[in-house]
Amino acid sequence: MSVLPQSVEKVINEFSKLPGVGPKTAARMVYHYLRSPNHDAKKLADSLNDMDENVMFCDKCFNVSDKKVCDICSSPLRKNSKICIVEESLDVIAFENSAVYDGLYFVLGGVISPAEGISADDLRFKDLKKRISELMESNEQVEIIVATNPSLEGEASASYIHDMFSKEVKEGTILITRLAMGLPTGADLEYADRLTLKRALEGRRNI
Amino acid sequence: MSVLPQSVEKVINEFSKLPGVGPKTAARMVYHYLRSPNHDAKKLADSLNDMDENVMFCDKCFNVSDKKVCDICSSPLRKNSKICIVEESLDVIAFENSAVYDGLYFVLGGVISPAEGISADDLRFKDLKKRISELMESNEQVEIIVATNPSLEGEASASYIHDMFSKEVKEGTILITRLAMGLPTGADLEYADRLTLKRALEGRRNI
Repeated sequence: MSVLPQSVEKVINEFSKLPGVGPKTAARMVYHYLRSPNHDAKKLADSLNDMDENVMFCDKCFNVSDKKVCDICSSPLRKNSKICIVEESLDVIAFENSAVYDGLYFVLGGVISPAEGISADDLRFKDLKKRISELMESNEQVEIIVATNPSLEGEASASYIHDMFSKEVKEGTILITRLAMGLPTGADLEYADRLTLKRALEGRRNI
Repeated sequence: MSVLPQSVEKVINEFSKLPGVGPKTAARMVYHYLRSPNHDAKKLADSLNDMDENVMFCDKCFNVSDKKVCDICSSPLRKNSKICIVEESLDVIAFENSAVYDGLYFVLGGVISPAEGISADDLRFKDLKKRISELMESNEQVEIIVATNPSLEGEASASYIHDMFSKEVKEGTILITRLAMGLPTGADLEYADRLTLKRALEGRRNI
């Protein structure tokens, strides 16, 4: 004799697959819907189906999009001499929301991580090479801004990108840069970790 | 120019309505689906639709069920001289998972909370009265175990239930009990709040 109807168990099970959601949180979520009088469950279901059917990845930057080429890649306002390489689509949103960047993006789809069994072949390095060649056709110099996370894996992927284009870097047709590392706004020196302090010191500037 | 396709925004919006889920968590959830190769989004959508169509509330205890009368209410193994009043369905699961109770349940649908604008009329007190009358037909004495949460609101609802049946309590046909309050297993006396300590002292027993 099960306490819960099977259809409820199934939704709890599906919610539990989400990152950071355990069975108890999943149950709370489901009960939220069971209590909701205005068929919110149906609304979520419809929106999920809609997303499942309509969302694709941009052919050029591989960000999520509802068009074959996304709004950013097709915008004449974005500088195509700069391309920012990020791990995932969420990172593009972070940049766009802060409105600090006017170039293009490229979503790598992750980082090289031997521990998780992700090798360079699992990521979009080939597409990246192709995309950079395209940009080089209309620019004398293309800047690749490597914006992978400041983790070991992020660093490894950054080096990999550097090695990929070492010839072009020597020739001066490609410039590879990395986001600055240091103390974040509002940080407390007292609690900063060793590596952050080291980077902040290395990257110090004249004032 | 929006960064995200509208269909993705819509799912993020729906997820954000869930308890404890903000826009950032919602975005993470959606990206989990966008990355998932096996149409997990569709599976969640299907399970939600299935739940929305098939789940109802038991006519007797108002717990979620896929039948008009749930498995617990229709089971001949459950003692119908005891009925445990809980705030919501999740509380029934908590009891059932611990397998410590062999009576019936009644889901009140919340607690009286003037602060949140929930009065007695918003809860299932009328249905409770009807249900208790049914049980009294086949029992000389019915025990009502009030298992609302040990909060101010839970206490107020417990008093309300007590007042509802004061006549029957005097006659001895209804016995109203309340879950014991005290220190939970594994608690540290040092960190117990004043009220818990007070209740633990009041409810002390011989050993």
